[in-house]
Amino acid sequence: MAKNITSPEKDFSRWYLDVIREAELADSAPVRGCMIIRPYGYAIWENMKASLDRRFKETGHSNAYFPLFIPQSFITRESEHVEGFAPELAIVTHGGGKELEEPLAVRPTSETIINHMFSKWINSYRDLPMLLNQWANVVRWEKRTRPFLRTTEFLWQEGHTAHADEEDARRETMKMLGVYESFAVDDAAIPVIPGLKTEGEKFAGAVDTYAIEAMMRNGWALQSGTSHYLGTNFARAFDTKFLDSENVQQYVHQTSWGVSTRLVGALIMAHGDKNGLRLPPRLAPVQTVIVPIFRSDEDRQRVMEKASNIRDSLEKAGVRVKMDDSQGVSPGFKFNHWEVRGVPLRLELGPRDLEEEHVMASPRNKPGREGKFTIPMNGLVDEVKKKLEEIQNQMLGDATDYRDSHTYEIQEYRQLVEQLPEKPGFYRVWWDGGAEEEARMQEETKATVRCIPLAQSGGSGKCFMTGRETDRQAIVARAY
Amino acid sequence: MAKNITSPEKDFSRWYLDVIREAELADSAPVRGCMIIRPYGYAIWENMKASLDRRFKETGHSNAYFPLFIPQSFITRESEHVEGFAPELAIVTHGGGKELEEPLAVRPTSETIINHMFSKWINSYRDLPMLLNQWANVVRWEKRTRPFLRTTEFLWQEGHTAHADEEDARRETMKMLGVYESFAVDDAAIPVIPGLKTEGEKFAGAVDTYAIEAMMRNGWALQSGTSHYLGTNFARAFDTKFLDSENVQQYVHQTSWGVSTRLVGALIMAHGDKNGLRLPPRLAPVQTVIVPIFRSDEDRQRVMEKASNIRDSLEKAGVRVKMDDSQGVSPGFKFNHWEVRGVPLRLELGPRDLEEEHVMASPRNKPGREGKFTIPMNGLVDEVKKKLEEIQNQMLGDATDYRDSHTYEIQEYRQLVEQLPEKPGFYRVWWDGGAEEEARMQEETKATVRCIPLAQSGGSGKCFMTGRETDRQAIVARAY
Repeated sequence: MAKNITSPEKDFSRWYLDVIREAELADSAPVRGCMIIRPYGYAIWENMKASLDRRFKETGHSNAYFPLFIPQSFITRESEHVEGFAPELAIVTHGGGKELEEPLAVRPTSETIINHMFSKWINSYRDLPMLLNQWANVVRWEKRTRPFLRTTEFLWQEGHTAHADEEDARRETMKMLGVYESFAVDDAAIPVIPGLKTEGEKFAGAVDTYAIEAMMRNGWALQSGTSHYLGTNFARAFDTKFLDSENVQQYVHQTSWGVSTRLVGALIMAHGDKNGLRLPPRLAPVQTVIVPIFRSDEDRQRVMEKASNIRDSLEKAGVRVKMDDSQGVSPGFKFNHWEVRGVPLRLELGPRDLEEEHVMASPRNKPGREGKFTIPMNGLVDEVKKKLEEIQNQMLGDATDYRDSHTYEIQEYRQLVEQLPEKPGFYRVWWDGGAEEEARMQEETKATVRCIPLAQSGGSGKCFMTGRETDRQAIVARAY
Repeated sequence: MAKNITSPEKDFSRWYLDVIREAELADSAPVRGCMIIRPYGYAIWENMKASLDRRFKETGHSNAYFPLFIPQSFITRESEHVEGFAPELAIVTHGGGKELEEPLAVRPTSETIINHMFSKWINSYRDLPMLLNQWANVVRWEKRTRPFLRTTEFLWQEGHTAHADEEDARRETMKMLGVYESFAVDDAAIPVIPGLKTEGEKFAGAVDTYAIEAMMRNGWALQSGTSHYLGTNFARAFDTKFLDSENVQQYVHQTSWGVSTRLVGALIMAHGDKNGLRLPPRLAPVQTVIVPIFRSDEDRQRVMEKASNIRDSLEKAGVRVKMDDSQGVSPGFKFNHWEVRGVPLRLELGPRDLEEEHVMASPRNKPGREGKFTIPMNGLVDEVKKKLEEIQNQMLGDATDYRDSHTYEIQEYRQLVEQLPEKPGFYRVWWDGGAEEEARMQEETKATVRCIPLAQSGGSGKCFMTGRETDRQAIVARAY
């Protein structure tokens, strides 16, 4: 177990904060509930951004930028929206030394101001679909905060699209949910369950909210991305209309969808272990670290020369590689340094390895002696790339195994009440409850309905709370 | 002259706003002094960001993210800094429905909060240099605003570095000025003059401010990037100290440097013409547009097939290419559409071109019939890439010629007073004046000292205002 990191079994919350501190991912800010994303944490976010941005562009979206400040009157125009967000707003009342005529809200999300512009830009069916995305910071005055998972200010992307009809808008909603799912699975190595949110959990102003739900290593759920079908709610509030091909004025149907720096939290808690972070190769800022090992000056020169060569050829092949040639610290210290930071593959190179024409390799996901293996110098680049792919797949496999072994099918509510404290995880249940049942469940067990999975097992059963026959199953869990 | 675009000779300010509107770069926001960056404008900024970010990383910098909100008390700690920024602050007084105990400033720049963190992270000389950069939005409550050039909220990057001594910090200051210069010259095709700002024009809190100054097509100067040597000013205010190798506590020496979305304004005004935008290929969101031309359905199929092939091979070769296959509009309409948007190279393909196995090419920088030429299908990709490089170089050449032909050497102040209204441009003068002369010059001519160029012609002369002998020349101009 790494120094300064609490055991995750003992105290998962403290483990999480310890990992963030020791891996230098983030630091707390002098402003309540805000955080500073340190270079290593930000590099993970940059890799996430690059992958998501590529996916958004491949699906036809363009980036744009809308203002940070939103007139307070805008937010009050959509009635559910204001109810959801008004309590969380940060308000600017003074600018340039004077009190403002109308206070400005710091954006908690941008549906309102974007609709204001859509109503100006969209005139005819030829302008549709309008497919925009924005990378931005948003502010929500949260009561309880936790780095990456819930902070007063956070970084995110918000997609906003307008369509000619419900069918096209719903298609977009599901398409972007799919984009999030494939990002989570393929890049973050996190298996997620895409599904529909209940009325109580949906976005303020949406008709339907869909989400991807991931399981953390304490059995809790983390909502990791959402995609909303907004219907014509904002279009009506902002009069966003277009002339259809028959020359009739129609409201646009809209979607919005977002993921945030919360994904960094998901990555920490879905993969981390007692020794710190474990990063999937596709998102790791450093995929491979080379630690040169030597005692004499003569060895030093030979080892460093070879290690530099290896670094150069890996770099040339597109591997994100780092050679740790820092001085005055032992190899063991370096091993620990990069282990805490979750680097997927460590390569060690000493005088004996030089003679035997190989490097010693330690994959982060198989710690200790038994995980170690050698890679011959000859063909090293290809082997490292192959190994990184293998680690990526193994991490997805491990996370899937963990989730499946912590997913329980239960028939009755009392089973949840009894089992959940001892066995946190996903509880798959027949579900036909409403707001009342959800409130009771949350009060008694702290669990919530995470989603109605898109993939249903089929058949039907009795709702585990109301006893009513239903063909819908839901995932119930404790959640962040 | 393009429809809806005022002649730049007639009214440069209106021309600027017309181009922004017609090329769909930006739109005004419902919040005073803010703007919306539309997809085409944002795509230019994304290309700028990508190039700058690569240059920052190549020079050893890492990105991080610091909070939007800064306690007001932080900003008051450095005396010159507060004097410079206090009048421009936007202040958050309420959060989550309650009045805050301490009002928060929306960051106008991040020296203070970053120093707060530096004082925590930096302990020993081993932690130095610390080389960070942040991509962020900042807010300055400006009285007069103009899209991209001066807006209440703008996007920028701010580099912040800490060093063990003055020498290293000054080296960094000049290195980053050089990075900005090479970005401007190589990518934006804008020749710039790097130089030192006078006391009156320097950054609030800096010891020395350096800038790159560009000339716009109306002869005005635009400060396009700044790099500051901060000395120990912020380190003293925030107690940012380190133990040097002799175990003595020392203040760090610091730098900060930034460029912003103002660069998009520079691009518009350094290259644009009466027909709209002209974009240098390296920053153009669309480098080449293909316009297929046909009348009959039979032609349509043949032309579209070939045009698609050309698009695919250009795309594969890394050219940012767009095929305009929109229907219901004439080729002439399409030509104009992409001309206004400044696409460097247009390719036209009709039935006759198919027969003759070539495409017709029109470079944006040589408009009209005389600029047109043909490119044989055979070897088309290489020829297009070569042509784009050529256009890039020609644009830099043109902008340099424009600047040089609008640069005047004068000996006496009255020449500035007389000539400037008729001949806006850069006035190269011997300079040994101070705040008093600068104030007088600004009041009488609206011109300011833009910089003391790093590249001096040598020799000496009499200051054009004070008459004192000096070996320094300055650039004087009207500026945005």
